[in-house]
Amino acid sequence: MVDRLLRNITERVELSRYEQELCKTYFTHKRIRKKHYLLQQGEVCKHMAFVQKGLLRSYIVNEKGGEHIIQFALEGWWISDLYSFLTGEVSNYNIDALENSDLLLLSRTAEEEMLSRIPKLERYLRLLMQNSYIAMQKRMERTLRLSAEKKYVTFADTYPELIKRVPQHMIASYLGITPETLSRIRKQLSLKEGGVDLDQ
Amino acid sequence: MVDRLLRNITERVELSRYEQELCKTYFTHKRIRKKHYLLQQGEVCKHMAFVQKGLLRSYIVNEKGGEHIIQFALEGWWISDLYSFLTGEVSNYNIDALENSDLLLLSRTAEEEMLSRIPKLERYLRLLMQNSYIAMQKRMERTLRLSAEKKYVTFADTYPELIKRVPQHMIASYLGITPETLSRIRKQLSLKEGGVDLDQ
Repeated sequence: MVDRLLRNITERVELSRYEQELCKTYFTHKRIRKKHYLLQQGEVCKHMAFVQKGLLRSYIVNEKGGEHIIQFALEGWWISDLYSFLTGEVSNYNIDALENSDLLLLSRTAEEEMLSRIPKLERYLRLLMQNSYIAMQKRMERTLRLSAEKKYVTFADTYPELIKRVPQHMIASYLGITPETLSRIRKQLSLKEGGVDLDQ
Repeated sequence: MVDRLLRNITERVELSRYEQELCKTYFTHKRIRKKHYLLQQGEVCKHMAFVQKGLLRSYIVNEKGGEHIIQFALEGWWISDLYSFLTGEVSNYNIDALENSDLLLLSRTAEEEMLSRIPKLERYLRLLMQNSYIAMQKRMERTLRLSAEKKYVTFADTYPELIKRVPQHMIASYLGITPETLSRIRKQLSLKEGGVDLDQ
């Protein structure tokens, strides 16, 4: 059940058999059905969630009621509102499942106890935070820096699996462009690809 | 010289006298004059920089040549392009000094050696990454979610010191609004404050 999580951890830090068994005990399993919520705006984010199977997204709603997708999370990724999780303040985030999903949840108390019993996991969590930071930095950078077309191409190159599994209008929301613009870009790109084929 | 850094670390993890002395040896001191660059686009980011004194900013240039400020860094803050630092790829960032500044630099090799000698610092770096992630998450969230006025008010509440020390047009660039919009917002806010005074 927790094999994917342990693989994810032991790729980064070495754990003895005993530590692996101990580590498992801090997580609880949760099954969540498509369209159901793990977190809703106004609640406190009580868990970091590791995706064993499935697909989730987090999004915020702006002052005019528009949705902005912050993050997707596939198998092997973590998802939460880290700010709310760490501070205990209520969240501006919504997290829901785009597919039926299996999660492993880690509460704040469990996290602290786990770190005090297995201090090596500080390193795992540091690397996890580091990677999350970089992903967010790159996301911010692309939002500010790239044209709509380059945003889409970079997204498609970086996350081919998401292109297959996430509905178009959600990818548009993530990229901060309208579904119409995304559809125009995809059409132009497929024409270009056609062009390349003809040239060969 | 490294007092502020050691304070910053020992507020988060306990270090013995020996570990504190050892820790110092991994940092090099750099003085940088106002308007000079610590990192320019196209270079690899070789260091994480801790600001002992002064003020720096990081920014990127978009496809049309426009500047977007990513981060400011005051005394006690870290600044770098973490992506470039960790991967060794060239950076899209520029980092320059807005005031004459004193920095403590940590290279990748020094970081690794320091962590292997003082594993407790994994925890410090995890907390640092965690806080950086949250700051970036909040920045992203405000960018997507708030009106120009609320963006400014939140920035002013969160970073009063930056309001005093950073030129207006750079605050506008950080918030993703034009200097004219920012100036209009500041005028409206000062009128509102005046109104409150008259009502009392």
